[in-house]
Amino acid sequence: MDFDLGAGIAVLERTPLAMRALLAGLPPAWTDATEGPETWSPCVIVGHLIHGEHSDWIPRARLILAQGPERRFTPVDRTAQFRESQGKPLAGLLDEFARLRAENLATLAGWGLTGAQLGLTGEHPDFGPVTLRQLLATWVAHDLSHLAQVARVMAKQYREAVGPWRAYLPIMER
Amino acid sequence: MDFDLGAGIAVLERTPLAMRALLAGLPPAWTDATEGPETWSPCVIVGHLIHGEHSDWIPRARLILAQGPERRFTPVDRTAQFRESQGKPLAGLLDEFARLRAENLATLAGWGLTGAQLGLTGEHPDFGPVTLRQLLATWVAHDLSHLAQVARVMAKQYREAVGPWRAYLPIMER
Repeated sequence: MDFDLGAGIAVLERTPLAMRALLAGLPPAWTDATEGPETWSPCVIVGHLIHGEHSDWIPRARLILAQGPERRFTPVDRTAQFRESQGKPLAGLLDEFARLRAENLATLAGWGLTGAQLGLTGEHPDFGPVTLRQLLATWVAHDLSHLAQVARVMAKQYREAVGPWRAYLPIMER
Repeated sequence: MDFDLGAGIAVLERTPLAMRALLAGLPPAWTDATEGPETWSPCVIVGHLIHGEHSDWIPRARLILAQGPERRFTPVDRTAQFRESQGKPLAGLLDEFARLRAENLATLAGWGLTGAQLGLTGEHPDFGPVTLRQLLATWVAHDLSHLAQVARVMAKQYREAVGPWRAYLPIMER
């Protein structure tokens, strides 16, 4: 499937709603659960998505659109949420994510991007040249990847509780 | 994490909301997308969850609670949704899933299950004896597994569109 701006935005605007529908009001036994040491809980994942709204997607898109002399992206800080979100209640994090995402999608809509602009490039610190189209497609896929992760982290909490059904639930071994 | 009826129900009541938040109103390019031949789209997955509400979880729980001479479960029909839901609009399927789930959770709450009842067993066609507690934990894990699947199926549609970022998105290869 080719990247389509409207179809991509349709997913981006739903992610905060889906995270809220799944997580808001759940006991901490679910929202603070992890897959083991050094892995992320649903709360930490929402914090990571918030950091991306501040620092990754729209700032990188701006850098590409500016086409200035410096088009190299700042590397993603994968532990920022441990400084920025740790200890904050999940309800507030879900609100913050929804607010930032709405602002960022308003910014994106305001740009009225053309096909030519979607083909402009920036420089990824690991991959080299990447297009704005690829960046926006990755924003969408990154959302979905972390939504799948939240569901997987939660499912794994019942790895033992499901008894023999574990054999029919490949998610338990991922 | 041990199965806890309240914590389990907290997830079961959120799944229809999360599916609706993620899928309602999305273009069919997302909701009819699959991972390839013989794999399921988000629409088909919602149909499968509806079939489970009719035929699997509560009927099996009833069979266990009755402790009659016949405690063997009817095998799950994994293709029922292709007969029962094919061609139905997703909006209606999401409504049907939400309605059936609410009814089933009302039934479950009405039983006021005790710890002793959660330890009663039925006979799984493949696994032999399973407890009501394991059945209910599996209901929860099955929801989460299919929510992760929906997000994965959607993410994979951008496998090519993300360009080199594919290397950072293991969900694309699952």
